[in-house]
Amino acid sequence: MINRRLVRGVLSVIREKTFQQTRGISSNKMDINKFGLPARFAGSVKSVWVEYIQLAQDFPSINLGQGFPDFGPPDHVTQGLKEVAEGENVLLHQYTRGFGHVRLVKAIGKLYSKLINREIDPMNEVLITAGAYEALYSTIVGHVDDGDEVIIIEPFFDCYEPMVKNAGGIAKFIPLRFKPKGEPTGHASDWTLDKDELSKLFNAKTKAIILNTPNNPFGKVFDMEELQFIADLCKKWNVLCISDEVYEWIVYKPHTHIRIATLPGMWERTITIGSAGKTFSVTGWKAGWAYGPSNLMKNLQIVHQNCVYCCATPIQEALAMAFEKEIEKFGTDDCYFFSLPKELETKRDYIVGMLKDVGMKPIIPDGGYFIVADYSPLESKADLSKETDKYKDYRFTKWMTKEIGVLAIPTTAFYNEANKPLAENLVRFCFMKKEDKLQKAGEVLRKWKSS
Amino acid sequence: MINRRLVRGVLSVIREKTFQQTRGISSNKMDINKFGLPARFAGSVKSVWVEYIQLAQDFPSINLGQGFPDFGPPDHVTQGLKEVAEGENVLLHQYTRGFGHVRLVKAIGKLYSKLINREIDPMNEVLITAGAYEALYSTIVGHVDDGDEVIIIEPFFDCYEPMVKNAGGIAKFIPLRFKPKGEPTGHASDWTLDKDELSKLFNAKTKAIILNTPNNPFGKVFDMEELQFIADLCKKWNVLCISDEVYEWIVYKPHTHIRIATLPGMWERTITIGSAGKTFSVTGWKAGWAYGPSNLMKNLQIVHQNCVYCCATPIQEALAMAFEKEIEKFGTDDCYFFSLPKELETKRDYIVGMLKDVGMKPIIPDGGYFIVADYSPLESKADLSKETDKYKDYRFTKWMTKEIGVLAIPTTAFYNEANKPLAENLVRFCFMKKEDKLQKAGEVLRKWKSS
Ligand SMILES: Cc1ncc(COP(=O)(O)O)c(C=O)c1O
Ligand SMILES: Cc1ncc(COP(=O)(O)O)c(C=O)c1O
Repeated sequence: MINRRLVRGVLSVIREKTFQQTRGISSNKMDINKFGLPARFAGSVKSVWVEYIQLAQDFPSINLGQGFPDFGPPDHVTQGLKEVAEGENVLLHQYTRGFGHVRLVKAIGKLYSKLINREIDPMNEVLITAGAYEALYSTIVGHVDDGDEVIIIEPFFDCYEPMVKNAGGIAKFIPLRFKPKGEPTGHASDWTLDKDELSKLFNAKTKAIILNTPNNPFGKVFDMEELQFIADLCKKWNVLCISDEVYEWIVYKPHTHIRIATLPGMWERTITIGSAGKTFSVTGWKAGWAYGPSNLMKNLQIVHQNCVYCCATPIQEALAMAFEKEIEKFGTDDCYFFSLPKELETKRDYIVGMLKDVGMKPIIPDGGYFIVADYSPLESKADLSKETDKYKDYRFTKWMTKEIGVLAIPTTAFYNEANKPLAENLVRFCFMKKEDKLQKAGEVLRKWKSS
Repeated sequence: MINRRLVRGVLSVIREKTFQQTRGISSNKMDINKFGLPARFAGSVKSVWVEYIQLAQDFPSINLGQGFPDFGPPDHVTQGLKEVAEGENVLLHQYTRGFGHVRLVKAIGKLYSKLINREIDPMNEVLITAGAYEALYSTIVGHVDDGDEVIIIEPFFDCYEPMVKNAGGIAKFIPLRFKPKGEPTGHASDWTLDKDELSKLFNAKTKAIILNTPNNPFGKVFDMEELQFIADLCKKWNVLCISDEVYEWIVYKPHTHIRIATLPGMWERTITIGSAGKTFSVTGWKAGWAYGPSNLMKNLQIVHQNCVYCCATPIQEALAMAFEKEIEKFGTDDCYFFSLPKELETKRDYIVGMLKDVGMKPIIPDGGYFIVADYSPLESKADLSKETDKYKDYRFTKWMTKEIGVLAIPTTAFYNEANKPLAENLVRFCFMKKEDKLQKAGEVLRKWKSS
């Protein structure tokens, strides 16, 4: 365990310096050091998103950074919100049930009951949250106590680590390594967990493992054998599995999405997390959910009730309607859950070709809407000398934004400090973008390559 | 400081008992005790809202419980959401800036710059949150560290206490007491803070005081003298003032809402919190904000970035439009900020008369849309013997819901354990309801009285 007092002491010195540099002491002889950040947030201050959204604003460029589409969601989804907004039922603008609007938890319960082949009790086994983000927070903070260990697979969605720390837990990391199971395929599936390394991370202090399939940023889709291995360790060590499946519908053939909660003995120890933003291409609606056994869900409810209490009613009603429509169309080509990955596969294939073309080495994703590529063959054509960031991928992406006009995300942001060197040659592009934007990116990158 | 390990031990025994009673051990030999709630949530489990929303569902009644209108918000507000939903700008369905949608923070910055007579920097001094609730959470969790003391004035909005505990802080309570400044007026202003009692609560460990004006549930509007006294103590002891002003527009003449951040030397130590739900009568939109000096706001940003990251874009855009419209109309009778309290004053006067009529003793609120009344003169007409709750106001409200058909909220929920006995004779009614609902409540209560 970290010594909180020590950390706090060090922090307050850093803060003092920062404050002295950036602002004068206030007129009122206020001792601002007293108002520093509590120690449990040590190391949670920097966010790649805050930094790169600012970068995008300061240097207009073709933005393949943050993970959201630049095109519209399905018509019926926005139509639903419009209907709620102008509808007769004025109560849809007021508070609804804290743990989830009844119509929405019922729709979600119905869908996942079918998908995991188990009857889900919508009132006790589903929680609606302010995005998958808050579902992750409620799950982690609702389960992790001082000194608990939590296993995180790298690269990881960057909020996992500060959430674990904030709960007093200790994050233990294991990176995906380039170890193909057979002949290398060029796909994300070439990146695997070392079984020994993983086994050794589990011990009596392990409270949870966070799984993310399809994975952001690699686009790795964990297969049955890999999931079974993780499941067996969870059962052996009595460990909670936090399964972040926000990209569950975005999987490219022949891969299929397997929900670890469906493996024998796993329902009772798994919290599965989903996102309306990713499911319906409305990241701005910030609605997510978690489902799992009621005894585990209770803990999430308490955190949720403590931090946001309930989520936006009109958005929940509109989402309920959207789910009901897709459930009706389920299994047909019309169903967005099946048409979206088809549409995205074309974009994936396009960006893979384009990145290869300009001389980068992409890892072909089997799921999700991100692609990671090794830019090192092109490094000699970039002048990183003016950038001052510690890690090269930060320097490269900043340079590329400013000089080439294409914004991508540095992948060291998805690794803990010790393993960041593993990712310094990699950058992440989002291809959930209109064709012409992807083409434009291709043009400027090709121009640069041949310059 | 509480001994966390001890609390955890005790808790795990309680949990074990509960689990053994309520469910068998899972097939997989899962040791579910390992998955209990972390100790920092001790005592945060029970929520009067969860309980009473269930009560309302189980026993249909005239619901004067939770604080939201049963009528529609202003047309232009819902119209705005409709326009965003069906609008051309598809990016309004995607992620926006984490600390607040730019158009919204600008509108809010503009409004409050005028109200507090100081230029607010919308990008660094305003944070948009998932309801005022999350603003409170981010403020408290972003400032309170292990062992810090936080002063809470009773009765208080019930989430303050678990939020402080969750942050490792120690809540110190001071109740408003029936001590009129002159002749009793029958109004909430008869309830005051004892100056000595308040002064003695401040010490070197005091991190913050939470002020709520207009107050929920009493409807007390703190006057300048009271605020000045609090401000002086904050300055003397270098204490943060968390000012929950969600009912800022709902104030009845001749009272006026004073923002404590405007008192000399207070801006630099005050975080002020507001709610779109309360401001525009759209509690279901769950959008709130906090404003204050950027060094204090930084801490809120970190918590916000850690737990929800960003708020719903369509709702923020619609709210920005709503604010812009009201800013234009500001000062005229058309402006909702001024028409709403007028409309509500009629409802207040009606419910005051009605409650007196049936024999209760209401405390007349000077702000907000709740009224607290002493029901003890009628107690002999109620048979509480079948209810088993510890506190009489819980037994009375449950009985009244089931037998009379009017739902109100027990006020001991707004007191810490030690002071709950002060409030056992009081219940809270919400009068933000249609005239005919208030009238119907009057009818059934009168019928009961004369039965
Ligand atoms: C792996 C992963 N989990 C969770 C989230 C957050 O989802 P939401 O926008 O629903 O909060 C994201 C968003 O990018 C993600 O990539
Ligand atoms: C005093 C007080 N503060 C905060 C809130 C929460 O407001 P919101 O719905 O914006 O989260 C309420 C809601 O009833 C309240 O009464």
